[in-house]
Amino acid sequence: MMLRIYNAKIWTGNRFIDCGELWTEDGRMRYVGDVSPLILLPWDREINANGNLIIPSFKNAHAHSPMVFLRSYADDMALNDWLFRQVFPREDKLTPDDCYWLTRLAILEYLSSGISAVSDMYFHLNSIADACVDSGFRNAMIAGVTDGKREDIEKTLSDGISAFSKKGELISYGLGLHAEYTNSVDSIKTLVEFARERKMPVSAHLCETKSEVEGCVQRYGKTPGVFLAENGLFDFGGTAYHFVHPSDADVDALRERGVNVVTCPASNLKLASGIAPVKKLLDRGFNVAIGTDGPASNNCLDMFREMFLVTGLQKGVLSDPSVLGGETVMKMATANGAEAMDLKCMDTIEAGNAADFVMLDIRQPNMQPINNALKNVVYAGSKSNVLMTVVNGIIRYEKGEYSVGEDVDRIYSECQRITDRILER
Amino acid sequence: MMLRIYNAKIWTGNRFIDCGELWTEDGRMRYVGDVSPLILLPWDREINANGNLIIPSFKNAHAHSPMVFLRSYADDMALNDWLFRQVFPREDKLTPDDCYWLTRLAILEYLSSGISAVSDMYFHLNSIADACVDSGFRNAMIAGVTDGKREDIEKTLSDGISAFSKKGELISYGLGLHAEYTNSVDSIKTLVEFARERKMPVSAHLCETKSEVEGCVQRYGKTPGVFLAENGLFDFGGTAYHFVHPSDADVDALRERGVNVVTCPASNLKLASGIAPVKKLLDRGFNVAIGTDGPASNNCLDMFREMFLVTGLQKGVLSDPSVLGGETVMKMATANGAEAMDLKCMDTIEAGNAADFVMLDIRQPNMQPINNALKNVVYAGSKSNVLMTVVNGIIRYEKGEYSVGEDVDRIYSECQRITDRILER
Repeated sequence: MMLRIYNAKIWTGNRFIDCGELWTEDGRMRYVGDVSPLILLPWDREINANGNLIIPSFKNAHAHSPMVFLRSYADDMALNDWLFRQVFPREDKLTPDDCYWLTRLAILEYLSSGISAVSDMYFHLNSIADACVDSGFRNAMIAGVTDGKREDIEKTLSDGISAFSKKGELISYGLGLHAEYTNSVDSIKTLVEFARERKMPVSAHLCETKSEVEGCVQRYGKTPGVFLAENGLFDFGGTAYHFVHPSDADVDALRERGVNVVTCPASNLKLASGIAPVKKLLDRGFNVAIGTDGPASNNCLDMFREMFLVTGLQKGVLSDPSVLGGETVMKMATANGAEAMDLKCMDTIEAGNAADFVMLDIRQPNMQPINNALKNVVYAGSKSNVLMTVVNGIIRYEKGEYSVGEDVDRIYSECQRITDRILER
Repeated sequence: MMLRIYNAKIWTGNRFIDCGELWTEDGRMRYVGDVSPLILLPWDREINANGNLIIPSFKNAHAHSPMVFLRSYADDMALNDWLFRQVFPREDKLTPDDCYWLTRLAILEYLSSGISAVSDMYFHLNSIADACVDSGFRNAMIAGVTDGKREDIEKTLSDGISAFSKKGELISYGLGLHAEYTNSVDSIKTLVEFARERKMPVSAHLCETKSEVEGCVQRYGKTPGVFLAENGLFDFGGTAYHFVHPSDADVDALRERGVNVVTCPASNLKLASGIAPVKKLLDRGFNVAIGTDGPASNNCLDMFREMFLVTGLQKGVLSDPSVLGGETVMKMATANGAEAMDLKCMDTIEAGNAADFVMLDIRQPNMQPINNALKNVVYAGSKSNVLMTVVNGIIRYEKGEYSVGEDVDRIYSECQRITDRILER
């Protein structure tokens, strides 16, 4: 597949090209720059961008895609009630086939929001991987270990490493602990030893709520970040999801170990978990990326909303409107996400990198006039501006139409059927 | 103009009609209900809603529409620096013709976000009114008095009342004080006397920032709400915009006088003003509506973003996910706005009311599956879901196309020209 997109304004992630071209070949960017005279290549398609804006695709660094079936089902509840009474009992009913279709639905929403890759922590990962491969979408999947027998945990993780190395370039697989509060010391130790043998990083939900922190202190006399770090969970790095209520010691422990942070501002507000200290973490040198969290706690999968929240909340709670400017936030949603998800060559739009990018319609009223195209995207942008989402060199979304190898109406009806069955309607 | 929309899911503002019809005639709703056999009327157009969702249009209860020219221009600054150093000097250069075109641009954005009416506090109101009339859009305009001579203030207000009563049903005109901190005691007294003679309500920016409150206490020994109320500003009611930092005495003073509140959460975050005590105000019985504020401080005019912020911020700062549920927030964005803006018969979708409504596409991935259509709109909705915005019985926006009596590209180019001139590029 060879694409030529011309007459485009391009923000590469580092610089602006005011009127340039972007060529792709076999999933890679072949040329990114000013207008070029060499245009007699066997293009599959030549696209006039009409001056619209191309940016790196967004990376959704933490989610639970199949949870779309719980969208708008059990809102307005505290996290623990919501998780243990509403979510877990219903998730127990999910079959692999359910997760396949629900993930396909989430992928449609990601594409419509300019997202080309997600990092899902969930179960039935095989079905999730299949849904992504079939849709042409990337997933840096994370196994979320919950309490279990040593041999079961080890087998699951070994099988995962073996199976997902064969799924192709769109899929990767990493180790994760669901959370301290859903694991015994034994299962945490099992995971630590498994990761240590293979020198693998480990990701985890961490310091999401005050009650999680208090519970860990009661159990072990330590805050979750310190407790898990001292037990070796992050000896080879990893990623902390949410990280709303870290102690200074948690921050120090994770920073020393090069752990990434993924902030999920919409979910943290909606579940009343709080507001993460994103400015402080950036100042300490953390790589902070952005995640939507699952659609049951958000309830949407929209990086534009998350970007405004990331900067707006820091400005609001710190009483300082100068913090987290537009470019910082755009990098969090793109390059920082790629780094946290270990997606090589997907941080910026440069020749040789993977051809994952988004074209935004700047001829919509929310993007006019143009004083600063980048700030327009961060402060005023919306998924309605997404004209095109390209993943691995293939146009998967264009002007409201999806090219994901399956009929959209079929995906909707399968997901409604699954939802009605699980929720017993 | 007679429209028949059938096969629609309708949330009237009070109840759901699962598969119903909506008929309009001459700007009013003629029938709203279940499928009716009486369909042999001389329809101008019959529209199959395909099961999509119709809701009352959103009312943007506080804005400064012509400020679109400053979108993404002077971000990341404190409100006082932003207002006095960046905004006011540049606004001085605005001509009436500038305000006409800039308002036309803002109206496009409103329509694309399902908004049918705005309450603008600004100057050159005559041009703003013309832009609304020419576009077929509603404006409950508010004169924002700033410091001046008694005779000038009185003449401006008298002329306004006289002129705007002739602009037709789309336009209304009310009295406003820009703010305590932009007025002398004399000009406040002039406005109070003018309002008292005519028994008119007065609206004002109020308790928006901590520094505004502190300044008023220094000047008068009282907080702004108490000071203005005791001076008679709200003797016939009115509306307080922002109201982020009211004292208990401010709350009491305004509640006694039946003053509405308009909360502007995105602007308050972006300018680092803070988070308004919306839950507390609702509990006290205030009519609380929602505004985008001007596009320079937001930077967009999108009621979906504001709705999520209104509920998300209260949940987050109060550590209580059960506050401000979906239906409450929808009513704030629709009926409460109509009440604050004194828009008669525009609160709900009922026969006899004005034909202002929105059709939302529920066959997009962010609206699937359907567990709760209303919560889907509040928690997951986006302007990308707006299929159609109807104002006064006329379809002004439909599937990305505008019907506003002017070419959209002309509006964009006029606004870019104005912006470049004022910002001296």
